Amino acid sequence: MTSEHPTYENVTLDPQANVYFDGACVSHTFYLADGTRKSAGVIFPASLTFGTAAPEVMELNAGACRIRLAGSEEWQDYAAGESFSVPGDSSFDIEVTETLGYVCHYG
Amino acid sequence: MTSEHPTYENVTLDPQANVYFDGACVSHTFYLADGTRKSAGVIFPASLTFGTAAPEVMELNAGACRIRLAGSEEWQDYAAGESFSVPGDSSFDIEVTETLGYVCHYG
Repeated sequence: MTSEHPTYENVTLDPQANVYFDGACVSHTFYLADGTRKSAGVIFPASLTFGTAAPEVMELNAGACRIRLAGSEEWQDYAAGESFSVPGDSSFDIEVTETLGYVCHYG
Repeated sequence: MTSEHPTYENVTLDPQANVYFDGACVSHTFYLADGTRKSAGVIFPASLTFGTAAPEVMELNAGACRIRLAGSEEWQDYAAGESFSVPGDSSFDIEVTETLGYVCHYG
Protein backbone atom coordinates (compact mmCIF):
# COMPACT_ATOMS: atom_id res chain seq x y z
CA MET A 1 0.00 0.00 0.00
CA THR A 2 2.11 2.83 -1.28
CA SER A 3 -0.65 5.27 -2.14
CA GLU A 4 -0.04 8.81 -0.92
CA HIS A 5 -3.77 9.62 -0.87
CA PRO A 6 -6.59 8.55 1.42
CA THR A 7 -7.93 5.31 0.00
CA TYR A 8 -11.16 3.37 0.14
CA GLU A 9 -10.73 0.00 1.82
CA ASN A 10 -12.62 -3.23 1.27
CA VAL A 11 -14.45 -2.08 -1.83
CA THR A 12 -15.80 -3.86 -4.88
CA LEU A 13 -14.47 -2.24 -8.04
CA ASP A 14 -16.00 -2.40 -11.50
CA PRO A 15 -12.90 -2.34 -13.71
CA GLN A 16 -14.90 -1.21 -16.75
CA ALA A 17 -14.66 2.58 -16.92
CA ASN A 18 -17.56 4.94 -17.46
CA VAL A 19 -16.79 7.37 -20.30
CA TYR A 20 -18.99 10.43 -20.77
CA PHE A 21 -18.91 13.36 -23.18
CA ASP A 22 -16.45 11.76 -25.59
CA GLY A 23 -13.94 11.24 -22.83
CA ALA A 24 -14.24 14.61 -21.09
CA CYS A 25 -15.32 12.60 -18.03
CA VAL A 26 -13.97 9.18 -17.06
CA SER A 27 -14.93 7.36 -13.89
CA HIS A 28 -14.84 3.98 -12.20
CA THR A 29 -17.75 2.77 -10.10
CA PHE A 30 -17.07 1.11 -6.76
CA TYR A 31 -19.11 -0.20 -3.86
CA LEU A 32 -18.43 -0.05 -0.16
CA ALA A 33 -18.79 -3.21 1.93
CA ASP A 34 -22.37 -2.20 2.77
CA GLY A 35 -23.24 -1.92 -0.93
CA THR A 36 -23.12 1.88 -1.10
CA ARG A 37 -22.26 2.93 -4.65
CA LYS A 38 -19.69 5.63 -5.38
CA SER A 39 -17.57 6.63 -8.34
CA ALA A 40 -14.08 8.04 -8.65
CA GLY A 41 -13.30 10.05 -11.74
CA VAL A 42 -11.83 12.95 -13.62
CA ILE A 43 -13.37 15.73 -15.68
CA PHE A 44 -11.10 17.49 -18.14
CA PRO A 45 -11.41 21.21 -18.92
CA ALA A 46 -14.76 21.61 -20.67
CA SER A 47 -18.21 23.15 -20.28
CA LEU A 48 -20.70 20.37 -19.63
CA THR A 49 -24.14 19.69 -18.23
CA PHE A 50 -24.62 16.64 -16.04
CA GLY A 51 -27.97 15.21 -15.09
CA THR A 52 -28.55 13.52 -11.77
CA ALA A 53 -30.84 10.64 -10.83
CA ALA A 54 -29.94 10.25 -7.15
CA PRO A 55 -28.76 13.27 -5.20
CA GLU A 56 -25.00 13.61 -5.45
CA VAL A 57 -22.17 15.03 -3.41
CA MET A 58 -19.13 15.72 -5.56
CA GLU A 59 -15.98 15.68 -3.45
CA LEU A 60 -13.08 17.27 -5.33
CA ASN A 61 -9.58 15.91 -4.81
CA ALA A 62 -7.91 17.88 -7.62
CA GLY A 63 -8.54 20.80 -9.94
CA ALA A 64 -10.96 23.69 -10.11
CA CYS A 65 -14.34 24.44 -11.62
CA ARG A 66 -17.42 26.54 -11.38
CA ILE A 67 -20.91 25.14 -11.02
CA ARG A 68 -24.42 26.37 -11.71
CA LEU A 69 -27.28 24.28 -10.37
CA ALA A 70 -30.45 23.88 -12.43
CA GLY A 71 -32.78 26.80 -11.79
CA SER A 72 -30.00 29.02 -10.47
CA GLU A 73 -28.46 32.03 -12.16
CA GLU A 74 -25.38 31.98 -9.98
CA TRP A 75 -22.09 30.30 -10.62
CA GLN A 76 -20.12 29.07 -7.64
CA ASP A 77 -16.42 28.25 -7.62
CA TYR A 78 -15.08 24.99 -6.21
CA ALA A 79 -11.60 23.56 -6.02
CA ALA A 80 -9.64 20.60 -4.65
CA GLY A 81 -10.57 19.94 -1.03
CA GLU A 82 -14.11 21.21 -1.47
CA SER A 83 -17.43 19.50 -2.19
CA PHE A 84 -20.71 20.51 -3.71
CA SER A 85 -24.16 18.95 -3.54
CA VAL A 86 -26.64 18.43 -6.35
CA PRO A 87 -30.29 17.45 -5.83
CA GLY A 88 -31.65 14.26 -7.38
CA ASP A 89 -33.59 14.32 -10.66
CA SER A 90 -31.87 17.56 -11.52
CA SER A 91 -28.82 18.81 -13.40
CA PHE A 92 -25.90 21.14 -13.12
CA ASP A 93 -23.69 23.06 -15.50
CA ILE A 94 -19.98 22.77 -14.88
CA GLU A 95 -17.07 24.70 -16.32
CA VAL A 96 -13.87 22.88 -15.52
CA THR A 97 -10.94 25.26 -15.53
CA GLU A 98 -8.35 22.80 -14.18
CA THR A 99 -8.74 19.03 -14.55
CA LEU A 100 -10.95 17.78 -11.73
CA GLY A 101 -10.43 14.67 -9.72
CA TYR A 102 -13.49 13.68 -7.75
CA VAL A 103 -15.34 11.10 -5.76
CA CYS A 104 -19.09 11.15 -6.36
CA HIS A 105 -21.22 10.10 -3.39
CA TYR A 106 -24.80 9.17 -4.26
CA GLY A 107 -27.48 10.10 -1.78
CA MET B 1 -24.00 -4.83 -6.45
CA THR B 2 -25.60 -4.10 -9.77
CA SER B 3 -22.52 -4.20 -11.96
CA GLU B 4 -22.92 -6.21 -15.13
CA HIS B 5 -19.18 -6.87 -15.39
CA PRO B 6 -16.83 -9.09 -13.44
CA THR B 7 -15.69 -7.06 -10.47
CA TYR B 8 -12.73 -7.04 -8.12
CA GLU B 9 -13.77 -7.75 -4.55
CA ASN B 10 -12.19 -6.61 -1.31
CA VAL B 11 -9.81 -4.13 -2.88
CA THR B 12 -8.27 -0.89 -1.71
CA LEU B 13 -8.94 1.87 -4.22
CA ASP B 14 -6.95 5.04 -4.68
CA PRO B 15 -9.67 7.51 -5.70
CA GLN B 16 -7.16 9.91 -7.25
CA ALA B 17 -6.94 9.13 -10.97
CA ASN B 18 -3.74 8.75 -12.94
CA VAL B 19 -3.82 10.92 -16.06
CA TYR B 20 -1.26 10.35 -18.80
CA PHE B 21 -0.65 11.90 -22.21
CA ASP B 22 -2.92 14.91 -21.62
CA GLY B 23 -5.84 12.66 -20.80
CA ALA B 24 -5.41 10.10 -23.57
CA CYS B 25 -5.01 7.55 -20.76
CA VAL B 26 -6.85 7.66 -17.43
CA SER B 27 -6.56 4.98 -14.77
CA HIS B 28 -7.28 4.24 -11.14
CA THR B 29 -4.86 2.20 -9.06
CA PHE B 30 -6.18 -0.51 -6.77
CA TYR B 31 -4.73 -3.17 -4.51
CA LEU B 32 -5.91 -6.69 -3.86
CA ALA B 33 -6.21 -7.92 -0.29
CA ASP B 34 -2.69 -9.39 -0.53
CA GLY B 35 -1.28 -5.98 -1.57
CA THR B 36 -0.94 -6.78 -5.27
CA ARG B 37 -1.16 -3.55 -7.26
CA LYS B 38 -3.29 -3.29 -10.39
CA SER B 39 -4.84 -0.47 -12.36
CA ALA B 40 -8.08 -0.13 -14.30
CA GLY B 41 -8.19 2.40 -17.08
CA VAL B 42 -9.03 3.61 -20.53
CA ILE B 43 -6.91 4.71 -23.48
CA PHE B 44 -8.60 6.88 -26.08
CA PRO B 45 -7.78 6.64 -29.79
CA ALA B 46 -4.19 7.84 -30.13
CA SER B 47 -0.70 6.69 -31.00
CA LEU B 48 1.37 6.51 -27.84
CA THR B 49 4.48 4.96 -26.36
CA PHE B 50 4.29 3.59 -22.83
CA GLY B 51 7.30 2.70 -20.75
CA THR B 52 7.23 -0.13 -18.23
CA ALA B 53 9.00 -0.53 -14.93
CA ALA B 54 7.55 -3.86 -13.78
CA PRO B 55 6.46 -6.40 -16.39
CA GLU B 56 2.82 -5.83 -17.31
CA VAL B 57 -0.08 -7.85 -18.59
CA MET B 58 -2.69 -5.62 -20.22
CA GLU B 59 -6.10 -7.31 -20.12
CA LEU B 60 -8.50 -5.58 -22.50
CA ASN B 61 -12.18 -5.36 -21.57
CA ALA B 62 -13.21 -2.98 -24.37
CA GLY B 63 -11.93 -1.56 -27.64
CA ALA B 64 -9.20 -2.41 -30.12
CA CYS B 65 -5.57 -1.52 -30.71
CA ARG B 66 -2.33 -2.62 -32.23
CA ILE B 67 0.88 -2.99 -30.32
CA ARG B 68 4.56 -3.03 -31.15
CA LEU B 69 6.95 -4.10 -28.43
CA ALA B 70 10.32 -2.36 -28.09
CA GLY B 71 12.85 -4.00 -30.40
CA SER B 72 10.19 -5.51 -32.61
CA GLU B 73 9.25 -4.51 -36.14
CA GLU B 74 5.90 -6.25 -35.99
CA TRP B 75 2.55 -4.85 -34.99
CA GLN B 76 0.06 -7.20 -33.38
CA ASP B 77 -3.69 -6.58 -33.13
CA TYR B 78 -5.56 -6.94 -29.84
CA ALA B 79 -9.17 -6.36 -28.91
CA ALA B 80 -11.61 -6.71 -26.02
CA GLY B 81 -11.29 -10.11 -24.38
CA GLU B 82 -7.60 -10.42 -25.21
CA SER B 83 -4.42 -9.64 -23.28
CA PHE B 84 -0.86 -8.80 -24.13
CA SER B 85 2.33 -8.94 -22.10
CA VAL B 86 5.11 -6.38 -21.93
CA PRO B 87 8.52 -7.03 -20.34
CA GLY B 88 9.74 -4.87 -17.46
CA ASP B 89 12.09 -1.96 -18.05
CA SER B 90 10.89 -1.77 -21.60
CA SER B 91 8.29 0.04 -23.68
CA PHE B 92 5.64 -0.51 -26.27
CA ASP B 93 4.02 1.52 -29.01
CA ILE B 94 0.26 1.42 -29.10
CA GLU B 95 -2.18 2.62 -31.72
CA VAL B 96 -5.65 2.66 -30.23
CA THR B 97 -8.29 2.40 -32.94
CA GLU B 98 -11.30 2.02 -30.61
CA THR B 99 -11.27 3.30 -27.02
CA LEU B 100 -9.63 0.67 -24.84
CA GLY B 101 -10.77 -0.42 -21.43
CA TYR B 102 -8.15 -2.38 -19.58
CA VAL B 103 -6.90 -3.84 -16.35
CA CYS B 104 -3.14 -3.69 -16.01
CA HIS B 105 -1.57 -6.51 -13.99
CA TYR B 106 1.96 -5.80 -12.80
CA GLY B 107 4.40 -8.73 -12.74
